[in-house]
Amino acid sequence: MDTIETLMKRRSCRAYKVGKISEEHLHIILEAGRYAPSAGNTQPWRFVITRGSELKKEVAVACAEQHWMANADVILTGIGVPKESRGHGDWQWYPVDVAIAMQNMVVAATSLGYGTCWIGAFDQQQVKQLLSIPPEMHVVALLPIGIPDDTHDAPPRKSWDLLFSGETYGSPLAGS
Amino acid sequence: MDTIETLMKRRSCRAYKVGKISEEHLHIILEAGRYAPSAGNTQPWRFVITRGSELKKEVAVACAEQHWMANADVILTGIGVPKESRGHGDWQWYPVDVAIAMQNMVVAATSLGYGTCWIGAFDQQQVKQLLSIPPEMHVVALLPIGIPDDTHDAPPRKSWDLLFSGETYGSPLAGS
Repeated sequence: MDTIETLMKRRSCRAYKVGKISEEHLHIILEAGRYAPSAGNTQPWRFVITRGSELKKEVAVACAEQHWMANADVILTGIGVPKESRGHGDWQWYPVDVAIAMQNMVVAATSLGYGTCWIGAFDQQQVKQLLSIPPEMHVVALLPIGIPDDTHDAPPRKSWDLLFSGETYGSPLAGS
Repeated sequence: MDTIETLMKRRSCRAYKVGKISEEHLHIILEAGRYAPSAGNTQPWRFVITRGSELKKEVAVACAEQHWMANADVILTGIGVPKESRGHGDWQWYPVDVAIAMQNMVVAATSLGYGTCWIGAFDQQQVKQLLSIPPEMHVVALLPIGIPDDTHDAPPRKSWDLLFSGETYGSPLAGS
């Protein structure tokens, strides 16, 4: 699919049909994440791809009981590795880096016809325990990926004039 | 451009030719960010689009003297708004949300033939002062966007087997 069309068609999909992501497509989606940029090319990320029905149901429970997640073929868990991350003071780059990689996967999956949904509501310790994630790592977000059974318009966005400034903050953007 | 081709062709571009992004293309790039997903659709983001030569040079100096940034037609500054962000304890969602929106812009710009580069090395206070960004906001990253004058292969990536696990962490991913 054309890139701009993909970016504008993406929706957060919370209903999935029975059906598999092909192995070829899963490979393409993961590779899009692997080739994402990261601070200093540190790639401070790992990903767990969960497809087993019972484990998906348990993960969905650990995600604020969003049971619908388990209907997606895949639940992908995006993990940051603080000791591989750039950072300074309180600021760590791994949340940004993992987000960039996961959004590449979202965009790739959307272009191949799959639905996805960023999941930020989850119990860190429960997800780590269910998926045997090492204690020094940190789950950033989860992502169901599957055959979409949900179409809806984009929810409202903040206005162009509020979001975008020209030259300095608060000045109108010329031409907008 | 096809989406998967875009995702795999994207490179961090650190050299730019003289030349403008068309107003139509800039609109498409920014709109791709505006329609990115965010935690609870909070959209805790703002963006400053700087094109003036002198101001771009000053911003580049505040970015660890990466003077080449000023050669790009646009320097986009991605800003998080903590008071609009979801979060709990020490965790704030705005770095992830701003990263998702900026990566949508990177992908859109790439597909239209422009070069981009995520910039994480910058002086927070200097950039805020130069761009009149309110004190309660937080610069997440910057992004030069322009006509690329740089082609190179992707730098090495960590191995598939290290990055991707099946079912639980550390187990091989079937079919990979």
